[in-house]
Amino acid sequence: MAKSRFEYVRNFERENLLLPETHIIIRVDGRGFHKFSEKYEFDKPNDDRALKVMNLSACQLMNQIPDIMMAYGDSDEYSFLLRKQCDMFERREFKLITTFGSTFSANYQYFWSSVCSDKPLTVERLPTFDARAVVYPSDDTIKDYFRWRQVDCHINNLYNTTFWNLVIKGGMTPHDAENKLIGTVSADKNEILFKQFGINYNDEPEIYKKGTLYIRDSVITPTEANTRDLTKRQLERLQKRLKKSEIKELHCDIIKDEFWDDRPWLLC
Amino acid sequence: MAKSRFEYVRNFERENLLLPETHIIIRVDGRGFHKFSEKYEFDKPNDDRALKVMNLSACQLMNQIPDIMMAYGDSDEYSFLLRKQCDMFERREFKLITTFGSTFSANYQYFWSSVCSDKPLTVERLPTFDARAVVYPSDDTIKDYFRWRQVDCHINNLYNTTFWNLVIKGGMTPHDAENKLIGTVSADKNEILFKQFGINYNDEPEIYKKGTLYIRDSVITPTEANTRDLTKRQLERLQKRLKKSEIKELHCDIIKDEFWDDRPWLLC
Amino acid sequence: MAKSRFEYVRNFERENLLLPETHIIIRVDGRGFHKFSEKYEFDKPNDDRALKVMNLSACQLMNQIPDIMMAYGDSDEYSFLLRKQCDMFERREFKLITTFGSTFSANYQYFWSSVCSDKPLTVERLPTFDARAVVYPSDDTIKDYFRWRQVDCHINNLYNTTFWNLVIKGGMTPHDAENKLIGTVSADKNEILFKQFGINYNDEPEIYKKGTLYIRDSVITPTEANTRDLTKRQLERLQKRLKKSEIKELHCDIIKDEFWDDRPWLLC
Amino acid sequence: MAKSRFEYVRNFERENLLLPETHIIIRVDGRGFHKFSEKYEFDKPNDDRALKVMNLSACQLMNQIPDIMMAYGDSDEYSFLLRKQCDMFERREFKLITTFGSTFSANYQYFWSSVCSDKPLTVERLPTFDARAVVYPSDDTIKDYFRWRQVDCHINNLYNTTFWNLVIKGGMTPHDAENKLIGTVSADKNEILFKQFGINYNDEPEIYKKGTLYIRDSVITPTEANTRDLTKRQLERLQKRLKKSEIKELHCDIIKDEFWDDRPWLLC
Repeated sequence: MAKSRFEYVRNFERENLLLPETHIIIRVDGRGFHKFSEKYEFDKPNDDRALKVMNLSACQLMNQIPDIMMAYGDSDEYSFLLRKQCDMFERREFKLITTFGSTFSANYQYFWSSVCSDKPLTVERLPTFDARAVVYPSDDTIKDYFRWRQVDCHINNLYNTTFWNLVIKGGMTPHDAENKLIGTVSADKNEILFKQFGINYNDEPEIYKKGTLYIRDSVITPTEANTRDLTKRQLERLQKRLKKSEIKELHCDIIKDEFWDDRPWLLC
Repeated sequence: MAKSRFEYVRNFERENLLLPETHIIIRVDGRGFHKFSEKYEFDKPNDDRALKVMNLSACQLMNQIPDIMMAYGDSDEYSFLLRKQCDMFERREFKLITTFGSTFSANYQYFWSSVCSDKPLTVERLPTFDARAVVYPSDDTIKDYFRWRQVDCHINNLYNTTFWNLVIKGGMTPHDAENKLIGTVSADKNEILFKQFGINYNDEPEIYKKGTLYIRDSVITPTEANTRDLTKRQLERLQKRLKKSEIKELHCDIIKDEFWDDRPWLLC
Repeated sequence: MAKSRFEYVRNFERENLLLPETHIIIRVDGRGFHKFSEKYEFDKPNDDRALKVMNLSACQLMNQIPDIMMAYGDSDEYSFLLRKQCDMFERREFKLITTFGSTFSANYQYFWSSVCSDKPLTVERLPTFDARAVVYPSDDTIKDYFRWRQVDCHINNLYNTTFWNLVIKGGMTPHDAENKLIGTVSADKNEILFKQFGINYNDEPEIYKKGTLYIRDSVITPTEANTRDLTKRQLERLQKRLKKSEIKELHCDIIKDEFWDDRPWLLC
Repeated sequence: MAKSRFEYVRNFERENLLLPETHIIIRVDGRGFHKFSEKYEFDKPNDDRALKVMNLSACQLMNQIPDIMMAYGDSDEYSFLLRKQCDMFERREFKLITTFGSTFSANYQYFWSSVCSDKPLTVERLPTFDARAVVYPSDDTIKDYFRWRQVDCHINNLYNTTFWNLVIKGGMTPHDAENKLIGTVSADKNEILFKQFGINYNDEPEIYKKGTLYIRDSVITPTEANTRDLTKRQLERLQKRLKKSEIKELHCDIIKDEFWDDRPWLLC
């Protein structure tokens, strides 16, 4: 169609293309979820149904986007690993992050309505997620990224478990509980839980302690992983296989090498 | 809390801070809305309820974010103008665009459920929007941006009106209608509409021809607009006034200077 | 010529195009000039011949690049203002800054050889300059940029003049002189100069106190300044006039509005 | 020192930090060297003294910057490989590229004066170089980058050798020589050289056919290469060893794996 004389304003648009042949990780993060969890009265320290909504949303996103090889999440965040040769949106950053942020938000609202139908959402506080993309140049940095998130999950969950037991079972005010925990290390919190509430932290559910992992089953051959230029037909076949590949849910340790050594295709 | 030895992976994060003291325009754009409109059987060429959902979503976003001075949209897109001194998220691009994209998507899904409750959404095709931010350095380029979008709205609506009349009332196949319109100019389409279907395009509803505009009522004094450093208290008072300011809906010409000359505060 | 199968490595290149229709300022800055001035035994606090080499280099650059409307410098730095519509290298940042940095360095080495032929340069310490580009969206921010540099020149020159008088005429060690000046304000330094050395700072040469300014004479009509799309021929004629325009050297105040009000074409 | 009220203009500065733990390649490229070579009457197709000036400049730069592991150049360009963990200027792009561009230009002017003292430089046409940085995420892409440059060197040198023989010995006009070579492949040019001028291209000097390579001798242990966090002292010792390490000049094939397999430390 005819172009108008105002078309020149497009010259002000700027594009950021993420570096080729590097892994992209996109992390979505709940916006204002502290208030969201209060408004919709989440169970503390962990709300099983809210976790279920997060996991359904992440798994659905992985079904929609075949280039996601694995996803890891806990609390109100999820990280998605795209395969190294991923060329979705020609690696344009704005397209990638706004698509992930808005699709995850859409999934969350959708699944919330069925999983938590007793808590209808109000327009003033709908669940939304921001999203950022980071590129990592090596397998080691990718692994350390996910280790970082799992360590964070552990630290937060131990803290929250202790905090909420002090408040709910121990009858402390949130303010007092917070003060009591200042300066404590993991061993201290484990002891409080055990001595005061008879809780062995090790026996807590794995999903709380380790977070949730979705991984795509091995469908990429080493050749496909390393070949820069698959033919168009080869690429289509790969995409199809990725789309149909099984997605598994895990709640396991991803800090030790073992997890990664056993699943080399994840870093394809 | 304690930092893990994996924390270094944050060094790979990159930030883009949008240039200070320039207007930011953020445009959200429906993803795959051609298929979305087929799936949910939109009226053609314009679906009044879908338009209503778009407009409710935009107006709600403007209520949530006081720094938006005006919004213009048609079809499946909306553009939001942030005031020049806006410091939301310290002008971090990723935060701004993923917040706009996911909040608009969330609003749309929410309002769809009430406005189009007879057409429940399925998880395979939820409404989502991508979003991009562009900075413009002058009043003229801002005005031309919005003119560009309104000219685009006009061109598309005239085309769609003619196309769908040829198909629905004229009984042509979409393929034949498309071919018939190749190479035609506005005058040709006006003539087809008038001679073949008795439609005077000028009499079509303004909301179709001009799109929809939301503008914030004048609440910024010239001093506030130009002062680089409002005190924290002044800024809070301004934000409050912006939040409470009336938002008006218009369907008028924004190409002529008149619109802009009458509302200088929009470009504050 | 034939492209090799290694050509794909170009896909890793990234471009930053500076925002259109904004002024670009490029500042070159001497690298390691503290040691450079020791090695080549500069007069203190100001070395007239070194200043002359700086100024000749800047003026020569302005002769070579017609889009430079003005230049301001002191000590070992120079700032160049490019006209708003400048399209040199399509505004590619890397081309602009490396061209300015290397051309200024080349000019400096060239002029040094004639102005300071008694002090031949050695390869271990050649004069080099880094360069950075910043875009400014308004006339006010441009003016404030140059005001910032001139205030800086004043602050540094007053300090250096006092410091070196304490050392050279006052016989203090550099360490003691530094300590004496810690916490002093301008009035204190003026008093030291006057009481201890009989120097009225106001009588110091303008070139030391105000720095050096090169401005291009008015050759741009308001129409040319504001027209987005000059025809190719109009543009060539403009470039020619800019190239032939007279360049004036000034050592005056650029902080007050008067300087800018009298020369509106500089901000074209 | 006191900050002025104009200091805010620094907020408009933008930084690009090159991705950590990736190799950086910086390529300097002569500006307008076609005209430069005409003005200073270079021998054709290759001017040995001009090549010498290029090589002296590159080698000197490598002596000045210990993080450069190797350099490859031909004609009027040179590429420098920085080690993966290089933290020079905290990887700020503008500092890196303007320092390389201006230092290489300075070196060139300096060495020209001694090597080509019979051809004094004039201020209107001083030698200057632009510079760009590209990051590469893997050993393979680094190798392919240098292969790309060497293939380019070969293609250009074969063309230039044939072209200039046609002009100088064959008496053709440049225009006719150019036309004669349009559409020819390597074999054709080899044949022209051999049949018409008795030149066996294989016997041409390696420096013309392969370009020039400077490599730093092995001084990095695998541990040092892979350790993210050397202590400050370890890092200083490494820098010292890099600074004192021998630099070797080569004119060999870098396309085959052999070159790289024999020198694994280059990609540290």
